[in-house]
Amino acid sequence: MDDTATTRRAAIDYVDRLENRDWPGWTALLTDNVVYEMPQTRERVRGRDAFLRFNTEYPGDWHLRVRRVVADGRTAALWLDFRVGAEQQDACVWLEMSEHGLISRVVDYWPEPYDPPPGREHLVERW
Amino acid sequence: MDDTATTRRAAIDYVDRLENRDWPGWTALLTDNVVYEMPQTRERVRGRDAFLRFNTEYPGDWHLRVRRVVADGRTAALWLDFRVGAEQQDACVWLEMSEHGLISRVVDYWPEPYDPPPGREHLVERW
Repeated sequence: MDDTATTRRAAIDYVDRLENRDWPGWTALLTDNVVYEMPQTRERVRGRDAFLRFNTEYPGDWHLRVRRVVADGRTAALWLDFRVGAEQQDACVWLEMSEHGLISRVVDYWPEPYDPPPGREHLVERW
Repeated sequence: MDDTATTRRAAIDYVDRLENRDWPGWTALLTDNVVYEMPQTRERVRGRDAFLRFNTEYPGDWHLRVRRVVADGRTAALWLDFRVGAEQQDACVWLEMSEHGLISRVVDYWPEPYDPPPGREHLVERW
């Protein structure tokens, strides 16, 4: 596989193994010193062990589904559907790969709903 | 150019021409019936003319910079740095291309800062 194919496969596996709570399989995708960042809260988790704990300790019966994956060389972007019970949220995830085909950096965005600003009603429809 | 190269070029030009207020050049990248969506506000703009007005009427002296572009076949993802004066926000943009190499769909996410939930302080560092 070329870099893009390896990255695309890793991105899909990353989500599938999280969803299946396949922790050995999931950690096998990551470099030892993987960095996980959430810019909205300015939080950073360093290292595979802490990143594993972050996920195993994450509260709720959460579920993930890939809406889109875009892979390009050693980077990928994932558009995810995240659900906990009846609550649904989209997420945007940016991945970087090491030269050995492991995920070395993950950056998550969790955009929340908000009210549109006034002044553009003449151009938009709502759903 | 193959599909991925065409998509990557269009994604970069999309941002550059917005930043430069090159409206003829920007609209030339879009299909007539391009659809623009903002899922957080559940707003949708239909068609190139309305999408152009949406951008030309957008308030403030805004500036865009590409932080990352990921292109894959006829889809792309853009990680953007958006600024108005001293205000800064990241954006995640998903693009779809038509078979003729024009942008047919744009989906924007505008994730805002929020406070981290309690209970994971032992795993994270803040910046």
